[in-house]
Amino acid sequence: MTTIYDKLRFNSRGLIPAVAQQFDTKEVLMMAWMSRDSIEQTLATGHVTYYSRSRHSLWRKGESSGQTQRLVDMRLDCDGDALLLLVDQVGVACHTGRHSCFYRAQRHNELEEILQVEVTPEKLYGKKKSV
Amino acid sequence: MTTIYDKLRFNSRGLIPAVAQQFDTKEVLMMAWMSRDSIEQTLATGHVTYYSRSRHSLWRKGESSGQTQRLVDMRLDCDGDALLLLVDQVGVACHTGRHSCFYRAQRHNELEEILQVEVTPEKLYGKKKSV
Repeated sequence: MTTIYDKLRFNSRGLIPAVAQQFDTKEVLMMAWMSRDSIEQTLATGHVTYYSRSRHSLWRKGESSGQTQRLVDMRLDCDGDALLLLVDQVGVACHTGRHSCFYRAQRHNELEEILQVEVTPEKLYGKKKSV
Repeated sequence: MTTIYDKLRFNSRGLIPAVAQQFDTKEVLMMAWMSRDSIEQTLATGHVTYYSRSRHSLWRKGESSGQTQRLVDMRLDCDGDALLLLVDQVGVACHTGRHSCFYRAQRHNELEEILQVEVTPEKLYGKKKSV
């Protein structure tokens, strides 16, 4: 029996890129990185968990914003060095409050914003009340 | 005027991951890497050109197989460190002859093949006739 762990090819830092796609609309939401631990946790719990390269730790998507991702299907590419996660996104995927992180397009030699902010970052991440 | 080149964040090897998505069906086809040169060439010609990490050179998608990708839209994510290419794929994206490289899924603790071969690799890449 072959499992995904037999075929994964991590980079020199033990990470593999993962693309998240909304399972029903097929919108590509974001790209992030996963470690073996984050893959195991994602498969075990059904909650998508990435590896944060800036914080050097597991990052359960939505842990601070509430915008979680439920795993629907995990796919591996032919070379074993990229993952495609079909997910069900709660709310918005992007920390800017847009549905997808890919909200800028190069058109007519210019970078245009093509998606609007649906939730303000203040609402996503809260703001300490001044006492 | 801001262009995509002002916002791109390449890794330490001068590369950025790029996800290719079929523009109309929204199927995610593959993930590969791009250099600044490959991005410039892609935008200038409309033919998607990646950077081959194994050959250390530009790789015009389909140059040997004929399975080219026409660029429809190039998008950049919020952090500037991942690209989404909306493309029109001729034939199949995967060197195994499947439409997408993401043809394996982890289901019931097992890696299953979920896409069939549409063109044999021999047909894609040719075979030298024995004389």
